[in-house]
Amino acid sequence: MSNRMVKLARRPKGMIVRDDFRLEEGAIPEPADNQFRVKIAYVSLDPAMRGWVNDTKSYVPPVAIGETMRAYAAGIVEKSNNPAFKTGDAVQGLFGVQNYAISDGSRVVKVDASQAPLQRWVGGLGMPGWTAYFGLLEVGQPKAGETVVVSAASGAVGSVVGQIAKIKGCHVVGIAGGAEKCRYVKDELGFDACVDYKGGNLAADLKAAAPKGIDVYFENVGGEILDTVLMQMNVFGRIPVCGLISAYNATAVPEGPKNLRAVLTQRLRMQGLIVFDWANRVPEAISQLGQWHKEGKLKIREDVREGGLDAFTDVLNLLYTGGNMGKLVLKV
Amino acid sequence: MSNRMVKLARRPKGMIVRDDFRLEEGAIPEPADNQFRVKIAYVSLDPAMRGWVNDTKSYVPPVAIGETMRAYAAGIVEKSNNPAFKTGDAVQGLFGVQNYAISDGSRVVKVDASQAPLQRWVGGLGMPGWTAYFGLLEVGQPKAGETVVVSAASGAVGSVVGQIAKIKGCHVVGIAGGAEKCRYVKDELGFDACVDYKGGNLAADLKAAAPKGIDVYFENVGGEILDTVLMQMNVFGRIPVCGLISAYNATAVPEGPKNLRAVLTQRLRMQGLIVFDWANRVPEAISQLGQWHKEGKLKIREDVREGGLDAFTDVLNLLYTGGNMGKLVLKV
Repeated sequence: MSNRMVKLARRPKGMIVRDDFRLEEGAIPEPADNQFRVKIAYVSLDPAMRGWVNDTKSYVPPVAIGETMRAYAAGIVEKSNNPAFKTGDAVQGLFGVQNYAISDGSRVVKVDASQAPLQRWVGGLGMPGWTAYFGLLEVGQPKAGETVVVSAASGAVGSVVGQIAKIKGCHVVGIAGGAEKCRYVKDELGFDACVDYKGGNLAADLKAAAPKGIDVYFENVGGEILDTVLMQMNVFGRIPVCGLISAYNATAVPEGPKNLRAVLTQRLRMQGLIVFDWANRVPEAISQLGQWHKEGKLKIREDVREGGLDAFTDVLNLLYTGGNMGKLVLKV
Repeated sequence: MSNRMVKLARRPKGMIVRDDFRLEEGAIPEPADNQFRVKIAYVSLDPAMRGWVNDTKSYVPPVAIGETMRAYAAGIVEKSNNPAFKTGDAVQGLFGVQNYAISDGSRVVKVDASQAPLQRWVGGLGMPGWTAYFGLLEVGQPKAGETVVVSAASGAVGSVVGQIAKIKGCHVVGIAGGAEKCRYVKDELGFDACVDYKGGNLAADLKAAAPKGIDVYFENVGGEILDTVLMQMNVFGRIPVCGLISAYNATAVPEGPKNLRAVLTQRLRMQGLIVFDWANRVPEAISQLGQWHKEGKLKIREDVREGGLDAFTDVLNLLYTGGNMGKLVLKV
């Protein structure tokens, strides 16, 4: 019996490769006073991970060489010296890519495994769901009747963004890669339309799907999609910037949006967001998302991959190649 | 006695040249019911003019071919059939590049020529001043003790932005082109520092002038300066986008900001602004700017050029080559 940990071996250049990480074995850690041990069941794979391993100024310090890779995960408390967490509690937190984590409870959320399966608590009801909730409602501020466009619409965040926008009475258009994802976004998630950016006619297709122009663009990707959307934004439009995944593996500094002038002429508000900034309001997000989920208004799908910790890099890279469908989760 | 009008002859490509406009003569126009005639004394030359002659979607319709060029101007009411405006009143409005204008009073502001000379009412106390006032205070929302950086700092808008930021208790850094402009910004306008972007060390010089990072960047220029500033923005920084003059004469679509990722990681708010959006609050701006000006807290300089309407294109181009110092005004 031991703990296996995925540790950062070196700074990746471009796409992550297996040798950028190494698997280490160690003793199962013992909780000290006020700590508890979690046996991890599911590790969340998120686009932000690519940024966390870069040695650049960001909203969190980079993962250090030799450190266990940072990750949201869900698991069960196995042993506890902390009165707020009991053996058997289902929990979600930044537990890292490993089998066992020690925590003092900070930023850990107790979850109700009877309400939704454990993997959902790192997906639509976890950090990606909270990101969608605060990012759309607080930064995007959609009003009923407005047109909301979201990129990476079949992904963990985008799928929730679009469904919340529907709940709020908006005309909702997704952007996704390929016919299968678009079908899922439109037919299963209930978006009004979905545009396939691989179809070669993004500007015209988007115009047809959003004929009144775009009031809110929830940005997950950047690059050419942003440039195309900028030219169709309405006056006083809002662009919550949640992710720029198209550039995360760039080895050179990427090109920026050529159509930035639209920000001026249309008086757009483009605003970055990180879910940590609403840390004290997470219970509100969990409660509301859970309610919508229970009522059938919020559909959530995980793409759970087997293979355990050995498969970490391969599974993670699915995010950057568009290989996942729904929230990507690694079963440990 | 006739009216001379500068009319748009064709759509300019790149820098404006003389043949893009033509001078026409016509009868002095007569005001109809509820109208009045203004004899124009000073025409305002503004960076936005380059955009107004492009046939692209923007916040105002493009000036049509054959139409008198749009411009703010100041003059004296000569003949009036409008009870709100009397012969001899000094007025400011969108009167165009010509000797005489007819108006029904909409968007016209009566000004006090005894408080400040007429040319100042198209400058620091006119539209550029209002832009600075609303753009900085409403969009930038500077707090005492924060660092505010403004580009085109010696220009009509930038010079007022920096002085208002000083009045609000901020650490204020200008960016301008050349030693003479920087000396003016620092020594005469009272900015804490001014960085010469032509000096070749913008990033390092800016870091030295704004050692605590940048909380508000008032954007007038775009291009490489924006990219450099983005990398020095503090968390939750604001970027009011007032102008992007570096790209106004581009014949190809310009490159965008490569460092857009900072918007995400630093949770920046980048927001376009057009002064027209605060049209109903102009009296407040005039009153406050006038008060500060009277108290000596707001210094305003015009760069008044002779040559009359014949010199319009040559004088206008000074804006895009950095040839003016202070608010550029054409004496008619």
